[in-house]
Amino acid sequence: MSATTYRLYHHPLDATSRCVRLALAEKAVVCDLVIEKSWDPSADFRALNPACEVPVLVVEQSKERLVLSDGQAICEYLDETQAAATMLGKDPAIRAEVRRLVGWFDRKFQREVTTPLVGEKAWKRLMGAGEPDSLLIRTGIHNIGGHLDYIAWLTERRNWLAGDSITFADLAAGAQLSVIDYLGDVPWDSHVLAKEWYARLKSRPAFRGLLGDHIAGFPPPRHYADLDF
Amino acid sequence: MSATTYRLYHHPLDATSRCVRLALAEKAVVCDLVIEKSWDPSADFRALNPACEVPVLVVEQSKERLVLSDGQAICEYLDETQAAATMLGKDPAIRAEVRRLVGWFDRKFQREVTTPLVGEKAWKRLMGAGEPDSLLIRTGIHNIGGHLDYIAWLTERRNWLAGDSITFADLAAGAQLSVIDYLGDVPWDSHVLAKEWYARLKSRPAFRGLLGDHIAGFPPPRHYADLDF
Repeated sequence: MSATTYRLYHHPLDATSRCVRLALAEKAVVCDLVIEKSWDPSADFRALNPACEVPVLVVEQSKERLVLSDGQAICEYLDETQAAATMLGKDPAIRAEVRRLVGWFDRKFQREVTTPLVGEKAWKRLMGAGEPDSLLIRTGIHNIGGHLDYIAWLTERRNWLAGDSITFADLAAGAQLSVIDYLGDVPWDSHVLAKEWYARLKSRPAFRGLLGDHIAGFPPPRHYADLDF
Repeated sequence: MSATTYRLYHHPLDATSRCVRLALAEKAVVCDLVIEKSWDPSADFRALNPACEVPVLVVEQSKERLVLSDGQAICEYLDETQAAATMLGKDPAIRAEVRRLVGWFDRKFQREVTTPLVGEKAWKRLMGAGEPDSLLIRTGIHNIGGHLDYIAWLTERRNWLAGDSITFADLAAGAQLSVIDYLGDVPWDSHVLAKEWYARLKSRPAFRGLLGDHIAGFPPPRHYADLDF
């Protein structure tokens, strides 16, 4: 039986792509990374995912080729097929809590913080879609506080966001925050408990790939890759 | 051991709530239904779900009380805890395809069709949030065609949306369409293949609860509850 190969189509400023990269690294899956401009998709990419969204994971073994999209679907697939410890938990109640929090960060945080902030400051420029809307940027910066408070509230009661162990909930939250952090917009100093949780996440070997990101035209702030930020 | 009781906080015009109601019925779970106005949440509801979104499922057994939110998390929990046949499939590749399609309908269809259409025609009125924006309504009506074509494309190749068996993908798609259908805005006659798939779904016993919905001030069109529409 030939080895299985993995190729991820992603973008370094897409939080869901970052979450899948973290999941792959936590699961010790060796994977080719291909940056895809999903706002200007190639015909090949459109054929892979009719939704024209990153991330897309292509898994090949012998003559079998599996094309997976939707960040949550990809993470669940990795959890079901890799021998590494589960990142969903074993108890159905914990798994439901992990999935609730993944939904919270993938959708609510994305909508309230990442889209207004990163959308205006970075995506618009990458896409050549006009000037950033400063009102939206201020909205994103305003909204992030409530989410950092929620992370603090959770980690005061639990070791990681969903319970005793690290799960996809931590990866989903860390992925969103790492994109904002790449732009230098996370108010860490006024959110000490959230910072402590993020520092633990950031120091994991699986996080290293993200810390090496460098997007042309958008240099990260100096603290971005620093474990002692 | 005392019986487990289930209570669902939902809204009849919320597609994700409808998806969970379908999942509960397919799993033959008897459940109390409580309509919640999530745009004007009670303090009790806010305590149940800090995201202040329906659906929320409360599961009680003896002195244990479990509060679940996020439609996908609730459906996965039901699949993991109920003896009924899986609605995710057994093979990881099929499960990934089911979850991709659940994401497609829960997010892409919701954003492109349900939010502009139902948001403008119904939610705004319920919330007292001003006049509907006719441009957004036209956008929703325009977008629905592509999604019905995609359903047709899938069902020409498969028995149900994600494969041979009915899965959460069908429930997620059916739930979204049933909300639009409640307003009479699905162009069934020009989308025969999608209509055939929906007719099969609509004739299932699990669908009966949705067909009995009647929202004050929004009477459904005559064909809504008709299996021969």
